[in-house]
Amino acid sequence: MESAIPPHLQCPRLRHRRVPDDYVPPYPATVARYRSEVTRVAMAYFGIQHRADALAPALAARALHCIAEAFAAATGPGHWDRARCVDAAGYLTTVSIGYWDDPAAYATWFAEHGARWASGAFNDPALGLFTEVLQPAVDRFETLFSADVVEGVAGVSSGLGQPIQEHAYWGGMRDRLALSQTDGMAPEGAPQVVTEGLHQRVLPHGNLCLIRSGQDWTGTQGNERRMYTEEVEPVLRAGMDFLQAQGRQVDCYANRYMAVVDAQGQPVDKSFGMGWWRSLAALERWAESHPTHVAIFGAAMKYLGTMGPAAQLKLYHEVTVARAEEQYFEYFNCHPRTGMLGAVTGA
Amino acid sequence: MESAIPPHLQCPRLRHRRVPDDYVPPYPATVARYRSEVTRVAMAYFGIQHRADALAPALAARALHCIAEAFAAATGPGHWDRARCVDAAGYLTTVSIGYWDDPAAYATWFAEHGARWASGAFNDPALGLFTEVLQPAVDRFETLFSADVVEGVAGVSSGLGQPIQEHAYWGGMRDRLALSQTDGMAPEGAPQVVTEGLHQRVLPHGNLCLIRSGQDWTGTQGNERRMYTEEVEPVLRAGMDFLQAQGRQVDCYANRYMAVVDAQGQPVDKSFGMGWWRSLAALERWAESHPTHVAIFGAAMKYLGTMGPAAQLKLYHEVTVARAEEQYFEYFNCHPRTGMLGAVTGA
Repeated sequence: MESAIPPHLQCPRLRHRRVPDDYVPPYPATVARYRSEVTRVAMAYFGIQHRADALAPALAARALHCIAEAFAAATGPGHWDRARCVDAAGYLTTVSIGYWDDPAAYATWFAEHGARWASGAFNDPALGLFTEVLQPAVDRFETLFSADVVEGVAGVSSGLGQPIQEHAYWGGMRDRLALSQTDGMAPEGAPQVVTEGLHQRVLPHGNLCLIRSGQDWTGTQGNERRMYTEEVEPVLRAGMDFLQAQGRQVDCYANRYMAVVDAQGQPVDKSFGMGWWRSLAALERWAESHPTHVAIFGAAMKYLGTMGPAAQLKLYHEVTVARAEEQYFEYFNCHPRTGMLGAVTGA
Repeated sequence: MESAIPPHLQCPRLRHRRVPDDYVPPYPATVARYRSEVTRVAMAYFGIQHRADALAPALAARALHCIAEAFAAATGPGHWDRARCVDAAGYLTTVSIGYWDDPAAYATWFAEHGARWASGAFNDPALGLFTEVLQPAVDRFETLFSADVVEGVAGVSSGLGQPIQEHAYWGGMRDRLALSQTDGMAPEGAPQVVTEGLHQRVLPHGNLCLIRSGQDWTGTQGNERRMYTEEVEPVLRAGMDFLQAQGRQVDCYANRYMAVVDAQGQPVDKSFGMGWWRSLAALERWAESHPTHVAIFGAAMKYLGTMGPAAQLKLYHEVTVARAEEQYFEYFNCHPRTGMLGAVTGA
């Protein structure tokens, strides 16, 4: 067992972990490990939204093809995937998510390929496009994996590590962030929107928080699959729906409950929630005490308790607390409840 | 809203609270407040155990009468109550619990009346007697009340205070303890037993933890009463049974799920769990992640969510983390799984 915080990011503490040094988690979990040369990653969400009407899907398909081609460039992401959902306003939303472990490569790629995405290159009244990017320093994001599966930002890691100590208790998320050794990561300021015609930027605030929290049930069969589908997923969906519809009550700016799709756009048996939160503390409070997440936690506990070590459901998450200058939000022809726009309009 | 830690116990922090300064709990709760002259309290559990066979109940009744008379002395407790349970070995156990806000008064009273309880004064083969006492400094215990009801150590307070900030999140218990400002309260050492004939003392260890956590459903009626009795209580009982039977797995040395009784020995609609734990951290981990308590929490959340502010169920708890020298454990003719004896025998 090792600390989630790698040795090269450990420092004299100004703040304590929530568990004592002899804490032993009741079951194993691991985190993604990065080469010590990696100082910063990029997580770039390129979204497209449209109604499911006549022409829009074909136009969107062209845009999706373009971004996939751009991802294949030499400076493209080390890992990417794609997922979709229907958002709170009823728009089909598809997000192509690229991950880089090299900010210089990302900057080069973005200048050449990414900047055009939400800047009018796909200007059609039926399409909305958005770019949501975080470029956190390595002390500002953490991961967690229940099984040997690589998803999300772990796709640009050097792989999963040994079982870690800081999990299976409330507060583990914070304790896995290297920055928590010295900083409470309180939010600073409030988001603002700058509108110029169809183009909008959201000016971010310090210590905004992003979570991507996913599940992979491709390996489940029979009773396990039934139990996930019938007993866990509906409770998860209800929680995700709450965050989408009423998340502002709990300082969740925006939430998307997304189905991962393959290269042909077909759903695979994977999903994730991605949520923008005012602060890590707000995410902590919802997770540990809101009835919707208490229900999710209870359903997952029951499921995992029933299945035991034979469970084939794979769980993972990644959480980032970003400085303002590590954030970039751009929206083109999007409805006012899209992503971080909703944080400002309060729509 | 005010801090659970009264101003006269606030000090420069070496350790942070788990919530940010702008945290607002989703519902109100209060704590017992004490005169600033109170530096230490005493919580003294005088227990008697016996089988429910022929003569024992009458003998026990005599002992219970004696301790009640002793409690009425001028130096007696400022508040006391009585409760009973059937323990893990099947013994009917009745505990008379006295609370003092003045250690000198307690010392005087104990020398005159209390010391004899578990020292052979009620020597009968059918009876076991025990004395379990904590005398924590005021920075080493905390309370929590959901409603304007005074129970337990609050009986020697000057009353409940204003709504407090440090509750409704995991870690609130620790954050309400004044000592948490500067100390992690890690356990030190291990308990030992000293046996001399029928008489046994348990030599305690540093930072042992006691919780008394209670519920009062006297005010409930109709559907609320049914919901408490049928949906909450069985889940609570299952968790208490787990701690009694298998608590050692989670570093709970002993647990009693007790029914409060009146002066005539009749149960009233109040109960509490009292548990001895190796550490505050062990109690935290069980409460926030063990399936038995996750189920209790879920049932309570559902109940309170259904009832809303009209709920008449009253909840309270008191938690102490005691130095070794603030603890006193004495057992006379008790079976080896009684209270802290079980911590040593591992029975």
